[in-house]
Amino acid sequence: MRKMKLVLIRHGQSEWNKLNLFTGWHDVDLSEEGVVEAMTAGKRIKEAGLEFDVAFTSVLTRAIKTLNYVLEESDQMWVPVHKSWRLNERHYGALQGLNKQETAEKYGADQVQKWRRSYDTLPPLLEENDERQAKNDRRYQLLDTHAIPSGENLKVTLERVIPYWMDTIAPEIKAGRRVVIAAHGNSLRALVKFLEGISDDEIMELEIPTGVPLVYELNDDLKPVNKYYLDK
Amino acid sequence: MRKMKLVLIRHGQSEWNKLNLFTGWHDVDLSEEGVVEAMTAGKRIKEAGLEFDVAFTSVLTRAIKTLNYVLEESDQMWVPVHKSWRLNERHYGALQGLNKQETAEKYGADQVQKWRRSYDTLPPLLEENDERQAKNDRRYQLLDTHAIPSGENLKVTLERVIPYWMDTIAPEIKAGRRVVIAAHGNSLRALVKFLEGISDDEIMELEIPTGVPLVYELNDDLKPVNKYYLDK
Repeated sequence: MRKMKLVLIRHGQSEWNKLNLFTGWHDVDLSEEGVVEAMTAGKRIKEAGLEFDVAFTSVLTRAIKTLNYVLEESDQMWVPVHKSWRLNERHYGALQGLNKQETAEKYGADQVQKWRRSYDTLPPLLEENDERQAKNDRRYQLLDTHAIPSGENLKVTLERVIPYWMDTIAPEIKAGRRVVIAAHGNSLRALVKFLEGISDDEIMELEIPTGVPLVYELNDDLKPVNKYYLDK
Repeated sequence: MRKMKLVLIRHGQSEWNKLNLFTGWHDVDLSEEGVVEAMTAGKRIKEAGLEFDVAFTSVLTRAIKTLNYVLEESDQMWVPVHKSWRLNERHYGALQGLNKQETAEKYGADQVQKWRRSYDTLPPLLEENDERQAKNDRRYQLLDTHAIPSGENLKVTLERVIPYWMDTIAPEIKAGRRVVIAAHGNSLRALVKFLEGISDDEIMELEIPTGVPLVYELNDDLKPVNKYYLDK
């Protein structure tokens, strides 16, 4: 049986992670620590001898930069890169830009925990005319506005990640190409839920560490037969 | 009349430029100075308010990194990037890796000048079994081996750059998309020759400075109606 490898990488620490703010689709840069995490991931990939034929990432700077560092450190910057909003982080609605601690004080820790950890509870949505609406951002202007969320839970995130997996990424793997995906905590969690068939409850417990390549070995049906982190 | 802008950027100084070696398709990194040049180009593009919808570059690290810095510094890392061997530097054949000064001492300055500055004189070609042959490099392994040169003059370089311009880049511009191309001294010279209709003799005098965005305004037939450098 042929075993295909798929590598997932969650971006390193961002400036807003550091400030403990809800980020979502807000486009923040990696912190210095995040850059080091990304470079370390690239070095581990090189040491493991992992080669890629095609790479996928979101349209958010922190994931794109993570991928660029990974490709640079593993001497494969020439690999084709595809960027899609479908791999973006979960949209955090009206919480984007708010401090997590202050939000917990204002709404109660239970409510915030629910927004963060429930599979299907939506965060407070952005108002139609909120300047944070993604339709105001040039990178989304060719999208059908119906595709642009005002706030997402993991369920909605999964529903827009999986079509991209099915139509664009999976056919590459089935054609024998070795794929790396650099993305976000929740878009990767959505993909992992789908690949492994994890339940709605259990998936919220799964935490993918930042900047550590997660390697899946897949069978011909793209079902995982093995899984490990490149953590040293 | 609608005027479309096209921006060309020659990569900044590479490690081998610094060492005065013939580079061609050999994949060397930018020097520290080259990184600064690329970042400066990006800042000028941001100051000039130039926005892009799509970007093109070669499969060589020094051009890809230049483009990445340009997109990062101008806050548009999310722009789609296409990488093609057709935008690679001129292949310098058996001269690749040799010191320019030493080569001049060995073959005579006149001969080296001819290899460097003649439109249609080929450099000494790589032998079929030379380990420097690009077919040994993973990034070219899906190409028809007939497409892989053993050495190129500017004429041959132009003949493989222009099909990519015609089939891939020009249609983007005609569709109204704003294009940036980060490439190399000779692949850009080939494109400029074609766009401006410069003669075989005159083109060899044209030197495109490294790391300085060259802006063309094109008419509906993609003929240049204006041209300037973003040099401050």
